[in-house]
Amino acid sequence: MDIAEFRKRGREIVDTIAEYYKGLADMPPCPTVEPGFLYKTMPLEAPENPESFDRIQQNIKSKIMPGVMHWQSANFFAWFPSTSSLPSILGEMYTAMFDAAQFSWASLPAAAELETVVVDWLAKLIGLDGRFLSIREDGAEGGGGGVIQGSATEALVVSMVAARERALDRLRAQGASETEVDAARPKLVAYFSDQTHSAGEKSVKLLGCRPHCIPTDSDFRITRATLLDAVESDRAAGLIPFFVCGTFGTTNTTAIDDLPGIADAARDEQLWFHVDAAYAGAALCCPEFRALARGIERADSLSFSPHKWMLTTVECTAMWVANSAHLARTLSIQREYLPRTEDAGAFVRDYHNWQIPLGRRFRALKLWMVVRAFGASGIRATIRRHVNMAKRFEEQLVADGRFEIVAPVVFGLVVFRIKPGCLGDGGEEVANRANAELVRRINADGRVFLLGPCVKGTSVVRAAIGATQSTHANVSLLLDITKAATDAILLQTP
Amino acid sequence: MDIAEFRKRGREIVDTIAEYYKGLADMPPCPTVEPGFLYKTMPLEAPENPESFDRIQQNIKSKIMPGVMHWQSANFFAWFPSTSSLPSILGEMYTAMFDAAQFSWASLPAAAELETVVVDWLAKLIGLDGRFLSIREDGAEGGGGGVIQGSATEALVVSMVAARERALDRLRAQGASETEVDAARPKLVAYFSDQTHSAGEKSVKLLGCRPHCIPTDSDFRITRATLLDAVESDRAAGLIPFFVCGTFGTTNTTAIDDLPGIADAARDEQLWFHVDAAYAGAALCCPEFRALARGIERADSLSFSPHKWMLTTVECTAMWVANSAHLARTLSIQREYLPRTEDAGAFVRDYHNWQIPLGRRFRALKLWMVVRAFGASGIRATIRRHVNMAKRFEEQLVADGRFEIVAPVVFGLVVFRIKPGCLGDGGEEVANRANAELVRRINADGRVFLLGPCVKGTSVVRAAIGATQSTHANVSLLLDITKAATDAILLQTP
Repeated sequence: MDIAEFRKRGREIVDTIAEYYKGLADMPPCPTVEPGFLYKTMPLEAPENPESFDRIQQNIKSKIMPGVMHWQSANFFAWFPSTSSLPSILGEMYTAMFDAAQFSWASLPAAAELETVVVDWLAKLIGLDGRFLSIREDGAEGGGGGVIQGSATEALVVSMVAARERALDRLRAQGASETEVDAARPKLVAYFSDQTHSAGEKSVKLLGCRPHCIPTDSDFRITRATLLDAVESDRAAGLIPFFVCGTFGTTNTTAIDDLPGIADAARDEQLWFHVDAAYAGAALCCPEFRALARGIERADSLSFSPHKWMLTTVECTAMWVANSAHLARTLSIQREYLPRTEDAGAFVRDYHNWQIPLGRRFRALKLWMVVRAFGASGIRATIRRHVNMAKRFEEQLVADGRFEIVAPVVFGLVVFRIKPGCLGDGGEEVANRANAELVRRINADGRVFLLGPCVKGTSVVRAAIGATQSTHANVSLLLDITKAATDAILLQTP
Repeated sequence: MDIAEFRKRGREIVDTIAEYYKGLADMPPCPTVEPGFLYKTMPLEAPENPESFDRIQQNIKSKIMPGVMHWQSANFFAWFPSTSSLPSILGEMYTAMFDAAQFSWASLPAAAELETVVVDWLAKLIGLDGRFLSIREDGAEGGGGGVIQGSATEALVVSMVAARERALDRLRAQGASETEVDAARPKLVAYFSDQTHSAGEKSVKLLGCRPHCIPTDSDFRITRATLLDAVESDRAAGLIPFFVCGTFGTTNTTAIDDLPGIADAARDEQLWFHVDAAYAGAALCCPEFRALARGIERADSLSFSPHKWMLTTVECTAMWVANSAHLARTLSIQREYLPRTEDAGAFVRDYHNWQIPLGRRFRALKLWMVVRAFGASGIRATIRRHVNMAKRFEEQLVADGRFEIVAPVVFGLVVFRIKPGCLGDGGEEVANRANAELVRRINADGRVFLLGPCVKGTSVVRAAIGATQSTHANVSLLLDITKAATDAILLQTP
């Protein structure tokens, strides 16, 4: 492909993106393909000779497009939204242009410094405590700092590794021999709740330490008391608690763990306290949500993903630590081909010492462009718009009379179900079957898509509101489909 | 930003990329900025109000661009190339358009199936054994399969975790209790060489197992004998060997470990055998390189990074395992919000069970577009062109008479130095100082950029040839600068 053809194709794709975005307002989100739809139509080998780009573009339309889940559709209500934006797409284009690997400052100075700038911006934007800043308000270097990981799981893994080494160093400081330290390794216990994101379990599997899954209360939360109970029983069994993950906005219901209580327990029990705010962290841009996150200021590490609810394309998870020395201690690698520049000051980061991969894309660029293109006010407005849509949907469901809200609507997520009382006297089992059927019918309509998980034994309808293009009209459509499906189900109810 | 503005900006950026690519032929690769150049000129907080995209684009030119290491410059000879291409950039644009999270097949069916297609294509393209295919030539499902990781480090971590669990399961099968299994964990040893990529050390740090770094021979390789010596001494000390990483093309010198010998030892000692072919794996597209990789067909896992030398933008590391059950066994997570589709057949993968993150971008798209746009023949031609350039550079250095080649030139890397004999009788110390000075002078010229690591005590000049736009003219420029710098150094030599 020569540069003239690139110009032509590039413009065509810009137009394709523009047309795609125009169509998002009523695009059916969920593809109707069956497993094998693509594999079975593809050649078994790479082509020997170059193919025309025309043909490739046609194939994207004819073969790829039918199998795309349209996460950007305004009618997409599944999982959490991947709230993208046009400025972020433009940012991806610049990143692709440079196609440079960022590991040390020296390998891509602009990326390293811009990342420090933009994670400090974000920290202030969501009202984080000064201890998470690379450079504090007064210009002094804090001990903390931020980094852009590819995913919330990576943030959790990295935190847990730092936590493990801190715990083992503590044993050494108490006089433990290396043999004793080794004997302690398999006894290390990390705490999660039954509502913690799968990233918790995966991190534990990677590190090979012990998970302790704490049952949540009726509000889907863990508290100081339930955590301390778990810690106490593990200590009694000779185990060594070292890490706890609290969640600000769980996947199932956006529940918020008792963060101040967990912070207390973590302090008393010498646990590393990580807060996973992957989805809901973005809401902290709006001061009215900050009281809900009390306790987060005492975390050892935390992360939220701008690729979820801050207008940024995947993969973009912002993570902070209060003491960056713990990360450097555990992940720092010295090699001749990895020039060090970090001694220059906290605005110079060799980020390979903060993450799993050595090198990665120029990730800060799109985030920086998004924050500037929207401004803090624009980001706040987006969050508030989505929350208002969710609240109104909740009101409409309640007003209908046949639905109950399963968990408080705090952000953009509405979790509800048909009241068991509307379904005769079959009890929970009938209610669960009916609500699973409700989800099936809503999705079978084809115009919208959402999930219907079974949360602690209760089948629910889970509508995650917050696709960038979603408006009240889309939520109204969801409401109409939900009501019609409910009518049909209740008609069948004896 | 509305769609009309997106069209305008998108086209401008397409033009910017086109102009950038036009300028790559003689673009000075290395920025001349000092630490703090960007951070110190940036506002300390995110802007409150939206900024115009004009201003953002101007700032990319005025603030970001001066701090970019131009990895795509035809005069970039540092680290390994990040051999990008225009079709890959177009692929990134489509990926950004969809901005969908791929984890289960159900979350993005086209991405899941395309990934299986394209990693099977790549496996055949580089001549991998059928045991690494998801679907074998005869249509039968193999036990193996491939996945696109974000980095070679992630491929190593994932392999090592699978290896650890296989080793512990073996103990269980031999009747070990869980207490005994736990006692075994801190005794697990992973083997690398002193030339293995930093990913090896990082993986060990993440897992918290024991690294054993094996000294390489004069060809920078580990052999069956040196590996077995290490294993034997560890067993004698009561430790449990479980993993070995062999490298096909090390970072310092593109050395190739004794892969058949390591495969033998791994079989006899029940080690998981991983091959890191991050850079050189791409060369296996050309059959003439395959004899060098003998032994790779017996690996348990291997990876190479199309983002290094196969015309694909970062982050794109292809990884294969011979037995995918080991990955599923260790990384598989069940959650209500993670629908399973894998029972449909090996062409349906829930790739979150193969990797560290839960979700990630639609990574297969750009790779599929690159392979089709270039065709197998175009990829081979690129590899051969780069290798020829490296060979000719080597000949010219040898013809000069003042340089010695430190390691065989097999791929695109040429590692050389001024012969100690040309530098008087000061021995190695003087030679090292002179060669470090040579690197400093070459880079100080400003037109080219390369690295000068100290490899096993010897300061060398390391020229990695293979930027997509590089031609003989660029290598000639490097040669001229090298000769002139050598003239100056030898003039100063007493």
